[in-house]
Amino acid sequence: MASMAAIFTKTPNPTLSFPKPSKTQFTPSFNVSFPTRSPNRCGRNPMRVSSQLISPDGGRLVDLVVDDSIKREKMKEALDLPRIKLSKIDLQWVHVLSEGWASPLSGFMKENEFLQTLHFNSLRLDDGSFVNMSVPIVLAINDLVKNRIGDSDRVALFDPDDDHPVAILSDIQIYKHNKEERVARTWGTTAPGLPYVEETIANAGDWLIGGDLQVLEPIKYNDGLDRFRLSPSQLREEFLKRDADAVFAFQLRNPVHNGHALLMTDTRRRLLDMGYKNPILLLNPLGGFTKADDVPLHWRMKQHEKVLEDGVLDPETTVVSIFPSPMHYAGPTEVQWHAKARINAGANFYIVGRDPAGMGHPLEKRDLYDADHGKKVLGMAPGLERLNILPFKVAAYDKTQGKMAFFDPSRPRDFQFISGTKMRTLAKNNENPPDGFMCPSGWKVLVEYYDSVASSDNGKIPQAATATATAALAV
Amino acid sequence: MASMAAIFTKTPNPTLSFPKPSKTQFTPSFNVSFPTRSPNRCGRNPMRVSSQLISPDGGRLVDLVVDDSIKREKMKEALDLPRIKLSKIDLQWVHVLSEGWASPLSGFMKENEFLQTLHFNSLRLDDGSFVNMSVPIVLAINDLVKNRIGDSDRVALFDPDDDHPVAILSDIQIYKHNKEERVARTWGTTAPGLPYVEETIANAGDWLIGGDLQVLEPIKYNDGLDRFRLSPSQLREEFLKRDADAVFAFQLRNPVHNGHALLMTDTRRRLLDMGYKNPILLLNPLGGFTKADDVPLHWRMKQHEKVLEDGVLDPETTVVSIFPSPMHYAGPTEVQWHAKARINAGANFYIVGRDPAGMGHPLEKRDLYDADHGKKVLGMAPGLERLNILPFKVAAYDKTQGKMAFFDPSRPRDFQFISGTKMRTLAKNNENPPDGFMCPSGWKVLVEYYDSVASSDNGKIPQAATATATAALAV
Repeated sequence: MASMAAIFTKTPNPTLSFPKPSKTQFTPSFNVSFPTRSPNRCGRNPMRVSSQLISPDGGRLVDLVVDDSIKREKMKEALDLPRIKLSKIDLQWVHVLSEGWASPLSGFMKENEFLQTLHFNSLRLDDGSFVNMSVPIVLAINDLVKNRIGDSDRVALFDPDDDHPVAILSDIQIYKHNKEERVARTWGTTAPGLPYVEETIANAGDWLIGGDLQVLEPIKYNDGLDRFRLSPSQLREEFLKRDADAVFAFQLRNPVHNGHALLMTDTRRRLLDMGYKNPILLLNPLGGFTKADDVPLHWRMKQHEKVLEDGVLDPETTVVSIFPSPMHYAGPTEVQWHAKARINAGANFYIVGRDPAGMGHPLEKRDLYDADHGKKVLGMAPGLERLNILPFKVAAYDKTQGKMAFFDPSRPRDFQFISGTKMRTLAKNNENPPDGFMCPSGWKVLVEYYDSVASSDNGKIPQAATATATAALAV
Repeated sequence: MASMAAIFTKTPNPTLSFPKPSKTQFTPSFNVSFPTRSPNRCGRNPMRVSSQLISPDGGRLVDLVVDDSIKREKMKEALDLPRIKLSKIDLQWVHVLSEGWASPLSGFMKENEFLQTLHFNSLRLDDGSFVNMSVPIVLAINDLVKNRIGDSDRVALFDPDDDHPVAILSDIQIYKHNKEERVARTWGTTAPGLPYVEETIANAGDWLIGGDLQVLEPIKYNDGLDRFRLSPSQLREEFLKRDADAVFAFQLRNPVHNGHALLMTDTRRRLLDMGYKNPILLLNPLGGFTKADDVPLHWRMKQHEKVLEDGVLDPETTVVSIFPSPMHYAGPTEVQWHAKARINAGANFYIVGRDPAGMGHPLEKRDLYDADHGKKVLGMAPGLERLNILPFKVAAYDKTQGKMAFFDPSRPRDFQFISGTKMRTLAKNNENPPDGFMCPSGWKVLVEYYDSVASSDNGKIPQAATATATAALAV
């Protein structure tokens, strides 16, 4: 295994701004679940793909970070190019692309990729086969920037805060950004109030620029959480190190409660029953943009830490790592992206629940998507044939057992569904949920979070105007 | 070839209400371009597919008309079933489905087909391959009808006018009709004013019902044009009869002018250059629902007749037949349907122009779709790999030659683009277009049409509020 290290590993972390935990809570899970990074990093060569893990889309994992040997030269080149200043979310996409989560994409989409994504949720490869690609990964620019680019065939992408070059986009193509069509085809609605649309599209430029990315350095956030942001190649290394013969991914953007834990544990049991010897769970919380009333990443990671410490999940068979993608809340369209990205991270099983990536309709009093469509679409999606989809049974609080359990339709009155609103109200009022809903230390983190919001915001909790999903089930 | 007749042929036409033309204008083209039907018809057995023509999607051409031997029994069965009264457009879809234009669809879509159409514009077959399917072919019902159906596993579909049973839909599935999502994903907009949406979706029921169709008799309209409605199997028979070694389809919903003729003639020349010995043109005007300001089918067929008589197109190598589908005006999404249906009719080449199936944005002063997207999407679409896409050069009126010609960008001032509005105004005012724009007898038909509208409507011509396409190019 030692020989693999040089292939998979990355640069050491920059100094972390996140304070070292004063107690040793992290220690038990840290070694096992949050693998550290070793000091060397790979170049742009395709990684060696073990036959033990599912192969990445397109056959090789894309790595868009330039080799150290040419970094200085590229940095110099970038300073002389027309500039595009990235938004925070643009930078998250650069991160996603740079590490190959979107393999085989080698940069922001050109028009032919954009059109295939909008119309077919998939990209055709040269050999005629399809890989899934359901959300547009695009970079918008306005007329001013377009004019500034002029005839240049490459541009430099600059960091939103520090005004330093992050990447070079070459062999560029600029094409029209029909926002209405993009939104309609991606979300299945054009209603105002979609969080990602309001944040990144509504006021974006009328042009999209695609091209090949060369990223000058691995993307870091210096928020104390970088060490938990393992790239697909690092995750693959970790799974190989653990001799995983199956990897099952669990995407989430909410605190983990015992209903989640139940189904993750149950999935492992099912995989063992199927004959796998060592199924490993990739617990892969989403780390990019989320809407205002979601619990921020920082607090969620604290909560996940407690859940692992508490033994609700088995650290020996769990890898917790942050998925750097922003959230679209585009339901059946987005769940495909969530699944596809995890193939690239080495997962061959994907757990999907009720209304994945869904939310309430921004204007109407109903969920935006049919709660079953995500699961159904995932099972049909071109390019996801190699991924085993594991739909999960509905979990709720079983009052007779005093714990989260799979809902038994023969005795509906024994079960309580704890909605997001309910959970929020309890946490805000410093009340406790029913015993067995969440481990007490994890719950405490949530109470602290809502306390901090209330005090910093004069008691105003971010409103769940668009969030109707039942928290007991939302992932 | 005689042995093929029994396989392909259909019932004789019912008495035609359309008056026999008093002159013999039709004769020259009729024999050659409007083949008559022979007296026998096939049952539901899969047709024999000649190796000379492209095979239908799914390997066999669907034929949903019940065999004569069970017709009486099925008719009786239908009278005892819960009823759904079809709209005129529903009936057009029954027609489309019954003849296998949408092969391998065997009836109105169930939810898994509907979802695949919305998200992937394609359907996965049992062998893992894809066929294209870009527009939902669905049947909407309201709560009342749903309740009336109750637990029945089959329903009878009744004719909109005559209240007689048209078909049985069996093995039914009823699922939610999320209109907003359907419209957004199909049209890429939810703006009010989309003709098909206003006509069939906006006021439709909140449920969709899918199932397998058994059509009791071939669908007829008794409008004098039934003899020009050849089914895919009849078209295939005709192409075989003519020893076609290539079939190139031209979809249109507008009068044929000399720009169209130029490119059809030019396409044949290109195919001959490619080595084909006998390329046959399928000129396949759309016969279903069109928007108010399009020229009605009846008048268009009159106009096409004149064009053929006039020798603008060669009757020997042209088959004119009506495509029974309603029009969505859904641009890049719909052009795939137009192309896919023609594969089933035996075409292996498809001509595509600027902004196919496009129209003006209902609210904004711009085309709804990028004029190049239709062509691009067609070239990428899953399930259309076997079809050769022939993008055509832009044709316009060349003032130096006094005829329609391919636009030469080196001398733009020599060309005149004649818009739909311009053409309409000229015809309305009984003026002539430039010589060489359209054959005079064809133009006369248009003038007569606008005269008839003006006189029946107190001079009000249907407004082209939603039509901005340049007629010189629109097909």
